[in-house]
Amino acid sequence: MGIVMGPNQYGKAEVRLVAVDRDTPRHSVKDLTVSTSLRGDLDAAHLSGDNSKVLPTDTQKNTVYAFAKEAPIGEIEDFALRLGRHFVGTADGITEARVLIDEHSWERIPVGGTGHDHSFARSSDEKRTTAVTVEGDQAHVVSGLKDLVVLKSTGSEFWGYPKDRYTTLAETTDRILATAVTARWRYLHTDVDWGKSFESIRATMLEAFACTHSYALQQTLYEMGKAALEKHPEVAEVRLSLPNKHHFLVDLAFCGLENDNEVFYAADRPYGLIEGVVKRDDVEDDPKAWYTLPEF
Amino acid sequence: MGIVMGPNQYGKAEVRLVAVDRDTPRHSVKDLTVSTSLRGDLDAAHLSGDNSKVLPTDTQKNTVYAFAKEAPIGEIEDFALRLGRHFVGTADGITEARVLIDEHSWERIPVGGTGHDHSFARSSDEKRTTAVTVEGDQAHVVSGLKDLVVLKSTGSEFWGYPKDRYTTLAETTDRILATAVTARWRYLHTDVDWGKSFESIRATMLEAFACTHSYALQQTLYEMGKAALEKHPEVAEVRLSLPNKHHFLVDLAFCGLENDNEVFYAADRPYGLIEGVVKRDDVEDDPKAWYTLPEF
Amino acid sequence: MGIVMGPNQYGKAEVRLVAVDRDTPRHSVKDLTVSTSLRGDLDAAHLSGDNSKVLPTDTQKNTVYAFAKEAPIGEIEDFALRLGRHFVGTADGITEARVLIDEHSWERIPVGGTGHDHSFARSSDEKRTTAVTVEGDQAHVVSGLKDLVVLKSTGSEFWGYPKDRYTTLAETTDRILATAVTARWRYLHTDVDWGKSFESIRATMLEAFACTHSYALQQTLYEMGKAALEKHPEVAEVRLSLPNKHHFLVDLAFCGLENDNEVFYAADRPYGLIEGVVKRDDVEDDPKAWYTLPEF
Amino acid sequence: MGIVMGPNQYGKAEVRLVAVDRDTPRHSVKDLTVSTSLRGDLDAAHLSGDNSKVLPTDTQKNTVYAFAKEAPIGEIEDFALRLGRHFVGTADGITEARVLIDEHSWERIPVGGTGHDHSFARSSDEKRTTAVTVEGDQAHVVSGLKDLVVLKSTGSEFWGYPKDRYTTLAETTDRILATAVTARWRYLHTDVDWGKSFESIRATMLEAFACTHSYALQQTLYEMGKAALEKHPEVAEVRLSLPNKHHFLVDLAFCGLENDNEVFYAADRPYGLIEGVVKRDDVEDDPKAWYTLPEF
Repeated sequence: MGIVMGPNQYGKAEVRLVAVDRDTPRHSVKDLTVSTSLRGDLDAAHLSGDNSKVLPTDTQKNTVYAFAKEAPIGEIEDFALRLGRHFVGTADGITEARVLIDEHSWERIPVGGTGHDHSFARSSDEKRTTAVTVEGDQAHVVSGLKDLVVLKSTGSEFWGYPKDRYTTLAETTDRILATAVTARWRYLHTDVDWGKSFESIRATMLEAFACTHSYALQQTLYEMGKAALEKHPEVAEVRLSLPNKHHFLVDLAFCGLENDNEVFYAADRPYGLIEGVVKRDDVEDDPKAWYTLPEF
Repeated sequence: MGIVMGPNQYGKAEVRLVAVDRDTPRHSVKDLTVSTSLRGDLDAAHLSGDNSKVLPTDTQKNTVYAFAKEAPIGEIEDFALRLGRHFVGTADGITEARVLIDEHSWERIPVGGTGHDHSFARSSDEKRTTAVTVEGDQAHVVSGLKDLVVLKSTGSEFWGYPKDRYTTLAETTDRILATAVTARWRYLHTDVDWGKSFESIRATMLEAFACTHSYALQQTLYEMGKAALEKHPEVAEVRLSLPNKHHFLVDLAFCGLENDNEVFYAADRPYGLIEGVVKRDDVEDDPKAWYTLPEF
Repeated sequence: MGIVMGPNQYGKAEVRLVAVDRDTPRHSVKDLTVSTSLRGDLDAAHLSGDNSKVLPTDTQKNTVYAFAKEAPIGEIEDFALRLGRHFVGTADGITEARVLIDEHSWERIPVGGTGHDHSFARSSDEKRTTAVTVEGDQAHVVSGLKDLVVLKSTGSEFWGYPKDRYTTLAETTDRILATAVTARWRYLHTDVDWGKSFESIRATMLEAFACTHSYALQQTLYEMGKAALEKHPEVAEVRLSLPNKHHFLVDLAFCGLENDNEVFYAADRPYGLIEGVVKRDDVEDDPKAWYTLPEF
Repeated sequence: MGIVMGPNQYGKAEVRLVAVDRDTPRHSVKDLTVSTSLRGDLDAAHLSGDNSKVLPTDTQKNTVYAFAKEAPIGEIEDFALRLGRHFVGTADGITEARVLIDEHSWERIPVGGTGHDHSFARSSDEKRTTAVTVEGDQAHVVSGLKDLVVLKSTGSEFWGYPKDRYTTLAETTDRILATAVTARWRYLHTDVDWGKSFESIRATMLEAFACTHSYALQQTLYEMGKAALEKHPEVAEVRLSLPNKHHFLVDLAFCGLENDNEVFYAADRPYGLIEGVVKRDDVEDDPKAWYTLPEF
């Protein structure tokens, strides 16, 4: 028996890249946070500190910046694929690369009724994301979004649950339902109009959140995933992580007021956490696509 | 000689309040973080733990929730004034109250081309703010905004500065200028259409940021404050705190690429910090309005 | 073909529990953040909002608090096992439970040369952690630590790495090596003196970090894991996630000063990220123990 | 009437500096976050973007790093004084400089019963702080600490407070008292053994927190400040900001358990906030020392 190195990866995390398209006086801005990880024949580095196959994380960072200049970035999925294929194709001993990108959004500042040519304001804190894994010739794309905070002021119930000696929660047919959506969806191939697919999946899930009369956040999760899959044959599965951001009705009886679902205390912690996968029953799993991503 | 209590205040910080207007099926949502502080004859509490004049912070919190139900919240300035006047008028020994409110914004989720009746998505991370001080019969209102992140991809220069033995910065006639605006403005009176004034000051400062060809972030700061004051006679002064969120041009010469203000590294720390007051030269200062607020 | 629910779990996250042992006037404090997740026959909740098998997350939270009173908490592994076994044993349809606990540490405030009986100061930001999964009769325990920030001011080199057209990093035989350790180790069984095992593994890994002359952070990672495994037969594998918190030597040539590894700029982002598993080659993998934990 | 520039300052914020003393093989480490601000004749920069008196924040940053090499850093107060005097003495038009420093602490990693020569672990998250203002020939020093989290598991009461229609809080003669201390104290002069003074003030305030049987957090605040002033004639006043980090007794009656001050829910928000100044009655105020620092 002995002690050995198991699975491992290394890379540069959170490279902050802002690229300006200056082809015309009407600029546009891409604002990305890029993390790269390489995997392969790295035993020597671990066992003896032999770095002959360790492409430095500093070089990975430089590559990200250089690639942003060598060709237009385009959609984050395309940029991640280019980077991943480069690392697997050129770094000796590297057999897999994983590239994570978060995209931060900017809007033009309105001036005189129209958007300014080169001045922008950060829009929502929501991020569009991708996680691309390149494995030899193959590529796996998992895209998504995070920090999309949503709330329904009615149209949410919660009752019919089991009771035990630790139960104190009252059943309700009307509550606030709020969550911060993290969603990731796996594409079946890479022949996708990434931007269009993203916009449509996002809109579809938001609509499902809005229009589902909810008996459980679990049900809302399923409806959001199902709606995206029904409309998007290019998607194999959707993973959702939905914190239940509790809004507790404040009991105002102490001062003789009735609170008819009007005044709420928005709590930080603890919070419910509902996580799940919605998927097609006729496609194979793809563990490599998800490897090292959070399970949900 | 002796040791004595100097100035002091106490209160409840960061009461998270979400109020739903359910008068019609088309709900609206107010999402506020409220902090209250009381000042007055509080020596006994400090010197001997005598709480007979200490209205508990728990009661202050309850009052915030009850007031949200007793009448429509309205604009945050109005809500803060109501709360402040209540505390000064009814709590024995309390002569001043200060109420801080941050307002978080929500947008309707679009469904079928129109906004949903009761489903919302958090818009930007930017917050509208107010800081109201009630002092006996008088009220001081300082409103503002924070976390408004803006960027110009050109139209910013920086040169002509003094050099010494520690200088390494190169002069530039074209750089990215980015900042996260914290602005506070003091109103001369309380006879103001708060919502309308806020929207116009915000738009005016954004426009000034966009349209100023900048030779220094200091200059942009002044232009933003000046534009707001010129358009808003109800405002006495504007205080701005502008972190210079550096975007460094990446030198790509290492791989033979020219980087013509296209690819930038967005740095976290350190950052420049430009702070200042723009004011009318014919109005008196009002230290009480600003007391315990950050100087800038 | 159709759309179905895949794997899922739900629970209450980040229940903040502080328990005081008041058996004698010399109190002690346990400060925990507890997250519970349940898995099982939950299709009905997702597909139709039928909550008849959904033990509310509110009840899970109540159970955590009640269990802290019903018996002494003891070591976090024991507390997590008790909670997990309770949920699997009593909640209808629930076949697996996963309990995560972070323990926050407190020290007695020194008064007159000795620790006070009931006054404490928070020690380091480091957390002791456990992740316990109960699956029917079986239990899987993965313990660890996080936010243990360490630094070597010398004894670290980095050279011999491959160069390509994107390389700019200079080789070095002396640099600062700093990281924030997240470590998780899987126990082979539950017949363990948890506290003693934790303290020894932590001390062993710290010693390995200190005493390894490092040619790569990968090598340090391996030495840390190996040292723990060699000393602790009860441990099957160690997973480490080590951000390389870069400390860049400041070039002071601009003012004629030589900087002989004395003055550094501590950068926030980007950072290297070195992740890996060190394991015994004669024990079976246990995917269930790690399920839904970060891969590294 | 017109619009003019009011008070202003600018500088570089949060310069992260790690300096290693390598004079002997037993290294030591200084880990500082330094922010500098300059004030003076800066109207031209604001009004017309004329930077001829704007010593760039980049140069300020370089100066911090160079000064760390030119002489040993020593105590943070001394380092801040050196920096402040340099800026006021050499930058044209600059009449005041303010230097803020946070010091982060490291401990030696124990190896074989003794601390390692060049390997360190971050100790508590607590920071030692200073805020030095240089104004021509004069210097003002305000030192302190922040993020010192403390808790008493008994020895704290709260009762005797006024009740009104919004009161629901029950009186108690035994509760947990917990806070995160931010303290700042103003020195009367600069002829101080800074390190020794800091250690003693810190220990004295901690002891006062521990040994005061508290009837109100206000009373604890006063006792902490008073104890420091009584022992330290070099200190004129102490400003304290004490969030009341509520630990709510969990009502376990729902499952038939009595909770005798044993099991608590540690809440995040809202929190009480108790702020005040404890001072000598025979020294003059020094507004310049505190200018632009938080009031409490």
